Amino acid sequence: MPIDDTAAIRISAFDNVPPFARGLVRDLRVRWALEEIGRDYGLHYLDAMKPKPPEYRDWQPFGQVPAFDDGQVRLFESGAILLYLGEQDERLLPRDPAQRWAATSWLLAALNSVEPALIQIVNLDFFLAGQPWAADAQPVFVDMARGKLKSTEAALGEREWFAGPFSIADIMMTCVLRNIDHTDVLSAYPALAAFKARAEARPAFQRALADQLAGFREPA
Amino acid sequence: MPIDDTAAIRISAFDNVPPFARGLVRDLRVRWALEEIGRDYGLHYLDAMKPKPPEYRDWQPFGQVPAFDDGQVRLFESGAILLYLGEQDERLLPRDPAQRWAATSWLLAALNSVEPALIQIVNLDFFLAGQPWAADAQPVFVDMARGKLKSTEAALGEREWFAGPFSIADIMMTCVLRNIDHTDVLSAYPALAAFKARAEARPAFQRALADQLAGFREPA
Repeated sequence: MPIDDTAAIRISAFDNVPPFARGLVRDLRVRWALEEIGRDYGLHYLDAMKPKPPEYRDWQPFGQVPAFDDGQVRLFESGAILLYLGEQDERLLPRDPAQRWAATSWLLAALNSVEPALIQIVNLDFFLAGQPWAADAQPVFVDMARGKLKSTEAALGEREWFAGPFSIADIMMTCVLRNIDHTDVLSAYPALAAFKARAEARPAFQRALADQLAGFREPA
Repeated sequence: MPIDDTAAIRISAFDNVPPFARGLVRDLRVRWALEEIGRDYGLHYLDAMKPKPPEYRDWQPFGQVPAFDDGQVRLFESGAILLYLGEQDERLLPRDPAQRWAATSWLLAALNSVEPALIQIVNLDFFLAGQPWAADAQPVFVDMARGKLKSTEAALGEREWFAGPFSIADIMMTCVLRNIDHTDVLSAYPALAAFKARAEARPAFQRALADQLAGFREPA
C-alpha cells in the first residue's frame, strides 16, 4: 500500500527498467515485507536507465534500489532492510532463538549461496547475451546453479517454510528464485517450485508485485 | 585461538582445500571475529575435496563451511554468524542505531553486491579455467567487478572503516576483497587497497589467518 510521500517509511524504487526486470526489481522484497505487516510506505522513484543523481549515492552507494529511511535510520541492501523490519515485527522474524537464527541463516544463504549462482545466468542471458561465448557458457552456469538448487530443495524437505513460521527467509528465497523465471531450470526441483508458488500466492506478495508493476511509467 | 574440542563455540572448517583457496576459506571470517573479542572455539574439520558426511548437511545444507554451534543456537552462512556474534559484543557491531544499521548494510553489501561480482572472476579463473571461452570472458567479468569496486571505494571515501568504529562490516568486506588477491584488479582502487591492508594488519586477523593455514593437513 504505497500511499503518499509523507509516510514515515520511504523506500527507493525504479519507475523505468528494461522489460525483463519488471516484477524482479529488489524493492519488491521490501514492499512484500511491509505488506505482510500492514505498514504504509512512500516511494522515491529513480530511472534505472539513466545516471542517478550524485546525492543518491549517499543513500545507496551502488546507485541501486532499494534504499530505506524511516526517520530513525537509513539503510540499504534488501537483506539489511528485511533484517531491520524483522527485528521490529515477529510476523517477519520469529522470536524463538533457534527459529530466529535459522531464518537469518537462510536469508543469508539466499543472498550469498543461491543468488550469486543464479545471477551468473541472469548476467549471461540479459547483459552478456551478445558475447560470442554466451551460448557456450550458459549450460556451464546452469550446472553450477543446479548444485545450489538441489541442496536448497533437500534442506527444505517436506517443510512449508525454511525456518518454522513464514519469515523474511522465505521472502528472500522466493525473490531470489524468481531471478530465473525466464528459464525452466526450477522445474527440476518440484518441492522448491511448490514452495515458491505457495509464497507467491500470499496476498501480501500479490499486492507488492502489483504495486511494483504499477509504478513503471510505461506499461509493459 | 582454536584450543580444544570442548570449547563452548564450535565451527566447521576445511583441513584440505585446493592450493588457491588456502587463506581464503570462509571460516576465516568467523575465526577473525572470534579473535577480535577473545573467544575460544573448537573446530570440526572436513575435507573439501571429498563428499561430506550426509549428517553434516543438517548443520550446513550446502556442504560448505563455516557452520557454527555454541550450544545455544546452530547457524550457517558466514554473514549470519557474524551478525550473531555482533549482537553479543559491541566491539563487533556498534550499539548506536545509525552505526549498527550502517554496518549491517555494509555487511550485506559485501556479500550480495560486491562478492557476486568478484566470485564470477574466481569461478572463471579456478573452476572454469579449462573452458575454451574463459579467456574471452575474463575481461568482461573484470569490468563488471570494477563497477562495484569503484562504488565501494567512493563510499568509503576518507574513512578508516565502513560504519564508524571497526565492525563485522570491515571483516566481511576485507575477506570478500581477498577473493581476487590472485589478480591486480584491486590496485586500481588505492583507498580500498589501503583499507584492506589496514584490516589485514590487525593482530586478530593475523592470528585467524595463521590458524586457518595451520589447520591444513598438508603444508602449502
